[in-house]
Amino acid sequence: MAHIKLLNEDLPGIVGLLNNRPETAKPLLDLAETLLRGPSSLTSGEREIIAASVSYWNQCHFCHTSHAAAAAAHLKSGLELIDEIKAGLPNTPVSEKLKVLLHIAHQVQRGGKNVTEEDIAFAREQGATDVEIHDTVLIAAAFCMYNRYVDGLNTWAPDPNEAYAEMGERMANVGYGRF
Amino acid sequence: MAHIKLLNEDLPGIVGLLNNRPETAKPLLDLAETLLRGPSSLTSGEREIIAASVSYWNQCHFCHTSHAAAAAAHLKSGLELIDEIKAGLPNTPVSEKLKVLLHIAHQVQRGGKNVTEEDIAFAREQGATDVEIHDTVLIAAAFCMYNRYVDGLNTWAPDPNEAYAEMGERMANVGYGRF
Repeated sequence: MAHIKLLNEDLPGIVGLLNNRPETAKPLLDLAETLLRGPSSLTSGEREIIAASVSYWNQCHFCHTSHAAAAAAHLKSGLELIDEIKAGLPNTPVSEKLKVLLHIAHQVQRGGKNVTEEDIAFAREQGATDVEIHDTVLIAAAFCMYNRYVDGLNTWAPDPNEAYAEMGERMANVGYGRF
Repeated sequence: MAHIKLLNEDLPGIVGLLNNRPETAKPLLDLAETLLRGPSSLTSGEREIIAASVSYWNQCHFCHTSHAAAAAAHLKSGLELIDEIKAGLPNTPVSEKLKVLLHIAHQVQRGGKNVTEEDIAFAREQGATDVEIHDTVLIAAAFCMYNRYVDGLNTWAPDPNEAYAEMGERMANVGYGRF
């Protein structure tokens, strides 16, 4: 049960929190929409993989599974992508650029000061632009917020991957403008 | 020097990043305005102390010093509050409620799952409402994002406390609607 009384206890993860406090829901949703579905040279599938990976490293089951399901919906890859992201994508074709951006995201997840000049130089060698590096750092940072929000208030989350299929489709195809 | 090329290299900390990418600046600023200056039973001074404390624990010099200066401006306490926050507020009158909310913020900074039922029960005993607990968790989580954004892109920051006096006044009195 969540640490605080929510208007609708049936809504899982961040959904119950957004429903409970519309003042803060608006900028939180606008940020997710911009970061994950706004104009970018990174595909939404790539950006959802970054979001899901950071959430997995932060051990946030709800955020990891829902954003991995959104990535699967974008990439039409099937829900096995959820466990693939947990395992570090051993069986998924991933560009060298996305690999190095995931490394930068992991550094950010551990703490901003961990990103080194070498990490940035290597990302540039793999073709990452400054805007792509910027957006990767901000997506990783933002999920360090969403994950702490969801777990810091002890929200509940469905366990099995299949429970996130419809949510992932909605996140990918309808977006974060409504929840 | 920042890890990426910015439109205006003279702007410090998050200011240069916001100026560089207006698409993401808007929701980031809306969130700060709502969390720190929106309607709340916690004063803006108390909320800026939470933001500055989390930023100090994350070792983000720019965010810590600027938000501590904003707290000082709200509380009309003088810039010595900046070092007081670093030291855990030994010489500043702080309510029992704010003390326990700062403890919850510190748990969130380390990771969302660290917040215990005992932490929440103790906060309620000190008079904290559910909305205050919610907002404390979200402010702490949000600064885990802002701090990683600022440091993950290696932005520069002025060193001395005095360099943040005017910025703190502007954050407190004009707000986050413009930067």
